[in-house]
Amino acid sequence: MILVITGNGKGKTTSAIGQIVRALGHNQKVCLVQLFKGEDFFGEQKILAKFDGLDFFSFAPKHPFCFKDVGRQQVVNECGQALQKLNEIAENNKYNLIVLEEFNIAVRDGYIDEDLLMGVIKKLNEKANVMITGRGASQKLTELADLVSEVKEIKHPYNKGIPAQAGIEY
Amino acid sequence: MILVITGNGKGKTTSAIGQIVRALGHNQKVCLVQLFKGEDFFGEQKILAKFDGLDFFSFAPKHPFCFKDVGRQQVVNECGQALQKLNEIAENNKYNLIVLEEFNIAVRDGYIDEDLLMGVIKKLNEKANVMITGRGASQKLTELADLVSEVKEIKHPYNKGIPAQAGIEY
Repeated sequence: MILVITGNGKGKTTSAIGQIVRALGHNQKVCLVQLFKGEDFFGEQKILAKFDGLDFFSFAPKHPFCFKDVGRQQVVNECGQALQKLNEIAENNKYNLIVLEEFNIAVRDGYIDEDLLMGVIKKLNEKANVMITGRGASQKLTELADLVSEVKEIKHPYNKGIPAQAGIEY
Repeated sequence: MILVITGNGKGKTTSAIGQIVRALGHNQKVCLVQLFKGEDFFGEQKILAKFDGLDFFSFAPKHPFCFKDVGRQQVVNECGQALQKLNEIAENNKYNLIVLEEFNIAVRDGYIDEDLLMGVIKKLNEKANVMITGRGASQKLTELADLVSEVKEIKHPYNKGIPAQAGIEY
């Protein structure tokens, strides 16, 4: 199954983390590949690192939207490394669930070629469930997916000027 | 902060689980109170039971929509016990995050009085972040909340007659 979690609201990454925990609870093997997250900023990463049955890879820790010291070409290169990792995983796929965090963003912003990503997703999906998160899922991916949820922001404290809080937003 | 995750799409419970993992990663104390879930059906429950820093309570394991052998009054009573537990937690609140799983459903279906639940949520929120999940969040709760996300179903394999799958839907 190919699952897509998109939309502008809070809940996409936490949903992916919950999906991972769910799969691990059934003794499944899981692989998480994150973009734009760093490796130790988010609370869940500290817990995920301890799980048996989960392999966790992080690429392109800084998105230029948030970090002005990161150039476009650097991010393209780092996302290229992520894509290469996915191709390696597809060659020798030992997972039940593979989660591609924020890859929708990478396609939307032109850091990853959509067709290359679609190709590897199809290959990964031959043996595993594949979940792709991030706002702005492409039309092609939406058509390919078996399940698509859109997390819509109805209300968010950012809009009242309240800063992000540990344990909630990260 | 009061957070509400509602809507008809897949991703609400997994989002709550991910939120719990995130909070635990910051060494926060977390309490999860689930309705309509049983205690060992969902993959994540096997993992959650092992977490330090998380207290986990389950009430009203069967919703009459899914289990025809459960009467309405039984569910009202069981949800009443859940509400009593929340009042006990509020009296001696030692948590940073309290997650109320499927309580929107309990209000929508008349198993829990909305005003009683709103009252205890406000009290819990004096010392903790409170997250409420389930489709059909009420107008009053939406107004009270600081953050509301609606998970919309765009596409779901149920609609193609594909049954629920371990590690994905449960």
